Amino acid sequence: HGLCRSASALTGPSSLSFRTHTCGELRSDHVGDKVTLCGWVQYLRQDLFVILRDFTGLTQILIPQEESASGLKSALCDLTVESVIQVTGTVRLRPSGQENKGMPTGEIEVLAENVEIFNICQKLPFEIKDFVKKSESLRMQYRYLDLRSSQMQQNLRLRSQVVMKMRDYLCNVQGFVDVETPTLFKRTPGGAKEFVVPSREPGMFYSLPQSPQQFKQLLMVAGVDRYFQIARCYRDEGSKPDRQPEFTQVDIEMSFVEQAGIMSLVEGLLQHSWPPEKGPIKVPFHTMKYEEAMRDYGVDKPDTRFNMKLIDLSEVFSASDVEFLRSALSKPGGTVQAICVPGGANLFTGKTLDELKQAAKTQFGQELSVVLIRADGTLKSPLKKLLSQSVTDNLLKTTGAKPGDVLLMAAGSLHTVRPLLGHLRLQSAQLLESSGVTLRDPSAFHFLWVVDFPLFLPKEDKPEELESAHHPFTAPLPEDSQLLYTEPHKVRGQHYDLVLNGSEIGGGSIRIHKAAEQHHVLKNILKEDTTLLSHLLEALDSGAPPHGGIALGLDRLISIMVGANSIRDVIAFPKSFRGHDLMSRAPDSLSEEELNAYHISVKWPTKHERCEEDERK
Amino acid sequence: HGLCRSASALTGPSSLSFRTHTCGELRSDHVGDKVTLCGWVQYLRQDLFVILRDFTGLTQILIPQEESASGLKSALCDLTVESVIQVTGTVRLRPSGQENKGMPTGEIEVLAENVEIFNICQKLPFEIKDFVKKSESLRMQYRYLDLRSSQMQQNLRLRSQVVMKMRDYLCNVQGFVDVETPTLFKRTPGGAKEFVVPSREPGMFYSLPQSPQQFKQLLMVAGVDRYFQIARCYRDEGSKPDRQPEFTQVDIEMSFVEQAGIMSLVEGLLQHSWPPEKGPIKVPFHTMKYEEAMRDYGVDKPDTRFNMKLIDLSEVFSASDVEFLRSALSKPGGTVQAICVPGGANLFTGKTLDELKQAAKTQFGQELSVVLIRADGTLKSPLKKLLSQSVTDNLLKTTGAKPGDVLLMAAGSLHTVRPLLGHLRLQSAQLLESSGVTLRDPSAFHFLWVVDFPLFLPKEDKPEELESAHHPFTAPLPEDSQLLYTEPHKVRGQHYDLVLNGSEIGGGSIRIHKAAEQHHVLKNILKEDTTLLSHLLEALDSGAPPHGGIALGLDRLISIMVGANSIRDVIAFPKSFRGHDLMSRAPDSLSEEELNAYHISVKWPTKHERCEEDERK
Repeated sequence: HGLCRSASALTGPSSLSFRTHTCGELRSDHVGDKVTLCGWVQYLRQDLFVILRDFTGLTQILIPQEESASGLKSALCDLTVESVIQVTGTVRLRPSGQENKGMPTGEIEVLAENVEIFNICQKLPFEIKDFVKKSESLRMQYRYLDLRSSQMQQNLRLRSQVVMKMRDYLCNVQGFVDVETPTLFKRTPGGAKEFVVPSREPGMFYSLPQSPQQFKQLLMVAGVDRYFQIARCYRDEGSKPDRQPEFTQVDIEMSFVEQAGIMSLVEGLLQHSWPPEKGPIKVPFHTMKYEEAMRDYGVDKPDTRFNMKLIDLSEVFSASDVEFLRSALSKPGGTVQAICVPGGANLFTGKTLDELKQAAKTQFGQELSVVLIRADGTLKSPLKKLLSQSVTDNLLKTTGAKPGDVLLMAAGSLHTVRPLLGHLRLQSAQLLESSGVTLRDPSAFHFLWVVDFPLFLPKEDKPEELESAHHPFTAPLPEDSQLLYTEPHKVRGQHYDLVLNGSEIGGGSIRIHKAAEQHHVLKNILKEDTTLLSHLLEALDSGAPPHGGIALGLDRLISIMVGANSIRDVIAFPKSFRGHDLMSRAPDSLSEEELNAYHISVKWPTKHERCEEDERK
Repeated sequence: HGLCRSASALTGPSSLSFRTHTCGELRSDHVGDKVTLCGWVQYLRQDLFVILRDFTGLTQILIPQEESASGLKSALCDLTVESVIQVTGTVRLRPSGQENKGMPTGEIEVLAENVEIFNICQKLPFEIKDFVKKSESLRMQYRYLDLRSSQMQQNLRLRSQVVMKMRDYLCNVQGFVDVETPTLFKRTPGGAKEFVVPSREPGMFYSLPQSPQQFKQLLMVAGVDRYFQIARCYRDEGSKPDRQPEFTQVDIEMSFVEQAGIMSLVEGLLQHSWPPEKGPIKVPFHTMKYEEAMRDYGVDKPDTRFNMKLIDLSEVFSASDVEFLRSALSKPGGTVQAICVPGGANLFTGKTLDELKQAAKTQFGQELSVVLIRADGTLKSPLKKLLSQSVTDNLLKTTGAKPGDVLLMAAGSLHTVRPLLGHLRLQSAQLLESSGVTLRDPSAFHFLWVVDFPLFLPKEDKPEELESAHHPFTAPLPEDSQLLYTEPHKVRGQHYDLVLNGSEIGGGSIRIHKAAEQHHVLKNILKEDTTLLSHLLEALDSGAPPHGGIALGLDRLISIMVGANSIRDVIAFPKSFRGHDLMSRAPDSLSEEELNAYHISVKWPTKHERCEEDERK
């Protein structure tokens, strides 16, 4: 117990370990040093070299060729790729001309004097090289091999460092308390996406909550003042691309604070924890009202890295006698709008434009009018002959469309035209980029606050009823709070979303802290069963401070930071989009005996039910 | 958004907030300053003062008495206790003679100039005063009020700080990577205590793992090198005192390390994160072999804060003709042992001694002989007349028993005598302490490593079969590894437990890193179905480094640190010992529709089953 302790460093990456250095560490300064390295055999070259790898990089190990070292030589030459060894040897300069400038340790090599073979790799379904493309399912099945790639190593390490700096900021700079809250909890009203966990009491179930929302508010009532948690959350959404049944949020709540305070806090947090190599970020972030975002971008999480905004053409066509335009504009909330895709007339094929029209029809139930601007400035469009010269001129002037551009135009209700054009804006950006146009700087990070959301929105399936835009605990804007009792659909909430490059990475609000107001919202506006939240209502009546908070989606934030295509690339062991762990094959069946302890049994669907299920997929 | 930002501090506990200072902060230095405080009304005194509280302490607010301030006065005087307010005023010295030395802010008071009432407390099931004793179930039901006590505030804040320092040490000092691992996982072999989570696929279930054991080993195979996680773990044990269905462990795993390295790491970790106010801790910790612990303390987690060790009397009674002694010693593994309770003859009543005898019989199936040492040195015991003078002298000499002491003596098999006396040793210590004897220094922290555990133990219900002492992944001591194939019951493991004041606060091991050895242990020794772990066995064959780790029980560690009686006092929202959340009333029943989504139905127990269940409780 004493021996090994004194033999190795007390701190740093090689402390308390078999190795003296990591594989990425040695430089010409170390020449002459006796070192011990541990790692994986990346490859063998001509019975002369072993390239050894660990998480820090590669080192070239020189295999001695003398007869006296024949045992050592054959041990090294017999190794399979990805075997794990310990090598002791002396650092020497590579012979002149053999340096590798592209390799941080490329000036040196280690002449092996001793090797210990820890494990011979017997099995390798794919090569651990960054340039080897693997299928997603193979990567997931052998995740422990996939994680050996330098990209995945970097992603996991960067995530760890960012989280550490976030904690430092919240705890050490701003006085927050890291409090763990339970995940075995009670079902929340409307919690259809909550996993259930049977208990040993017959018929009694816990739920895995979607967020610690209730707990963080209760902690404010408890006087904790400033709470944060890097919280595991659960959401059962079935199969959705790039969603995970368990995910992580940076969960924050503060007492005695206004919206501006939370926004400043988050700006400070991100600035403090942002990886220096990704460039500095500027605060305060730009702020946009919900109404402005919908008007200009057709979406509440605009990607502001490029322009191509929605243009209102209602004025241009106000006197039009084209039937579908006149009909749209004559209805309340009717509009004619367009986006102008620069260069689209040249870059988009007829097939592409047909696909856009088709998507508009199937996904939004909308007709899409396509207007190409020819090189001579004339229009190419079925609309052309219906438009007078002055309307045409006005259209070109209002949209700023130039020869080679294409206008994507829709007429109808604001509620469908905006989302449609918002969607087409993003799709057009992707199409332009896949044609080689540089539209969005891949190293740019555009943060944006979206504020002044409506507190309630009409339910999608029952528009005569209201549901919360954020969640039922969001406070109204003070100037709108009386409208709660008269015209709740007009109330704006103290709700703020944080958007990064067009993805929502956080959302929060100032909460209702008066029991009577919370009761009114739950019971009279949302028609919820308040008994399920009686503990929260009681808590608000026992001295609740004004409070608010936010939750940041950590997986999404990190994936944008590292430029990953999917949040799966910043999660060590993600599930497939169907919620499966392909490595261990979870979920799995259980024996009847195991289920008996929880007083449940499987209700196998009938053939008919199975067919219905399949159709929904 | 800009206004409030500039108005308040940018860092520290009052940053970004309505307040300028906390309630524990003001001193005579602040006299003359205009301040704003926010907090809870602790109490009102004679319409003259409001005592305002937040997490940092109390401040006396002086209510102005002038006619011109009558509105302010009545607003303040009408407040109920625990209402939440904001007060702006000027700091002044208290009049001479009215200072309160016992109160950190006792030199000053704040003359109120303005008040904002955020919330009137309507309801209070008990007073928020540290001296008010509440029942445990009332505390749990109104946990948000219970957490307002200064003790619970301190516990949660200390926990947060200790965890922060642990992370700092692991991440910043020792190069560990914080990796989150899934909690929706596959059932592990023998995982009878794992909660199950139904998925939307009929008959398919996730399990909530008891620890990230498999994942941390897979991360080592993945080359992550050093992993840690403050991990949420789940264990369904039904009702057990001071256990929680979800708990937290500091989970650590390292590659290229030996037992001594992990032990040094943990010592460094605890030294780094130990709260300074609890006094320094000395490293390295004392190490004891399992065999020594069992021999001297009768338990594998000895409380070394006091002596009272087990004394082997087999030698003393080797020639005895007392029937029960001779019979015990004549059997293989037979022994006669005692503990000597200093002062026990005077402090233990006859009733107490009868209870100890009764416990020995019911819990251990053992007779207990009680020998009191009279003031004159003679024995008082039914045994007295059976013992010769020389045996009596030898007994007193060997045990060191003095007048006034009591010997608790048992004859039988080592396997029952040791645990019995180990149990009586702790019970006697408690009895002595409740009689006013100071045996254990409440501010002392005795850390102890217990090592060289047997790798396997006979199963309690089927002693002819073996089970893992730690878990099936623990590596044998190198010198014992060949015994795995011949005499597995003799193999000692590279397994180390960390004990603090007689509680196990951590356990770890060096793991098996060769697939063939792991397969042998699982299949041939433990008779497990290896297909459930095929992914782990495959991983070991794909280049697994030597590795080991440990898990520390965070809840237990913090509870000992703060001197709490129960881990519930260091958990924000604990469950009752029956696993209930008394605040929200979880677990709860679910509708059939909600269960249908998961293809399960409740199997209500029959009357007969219910009775059987009740009997087991």
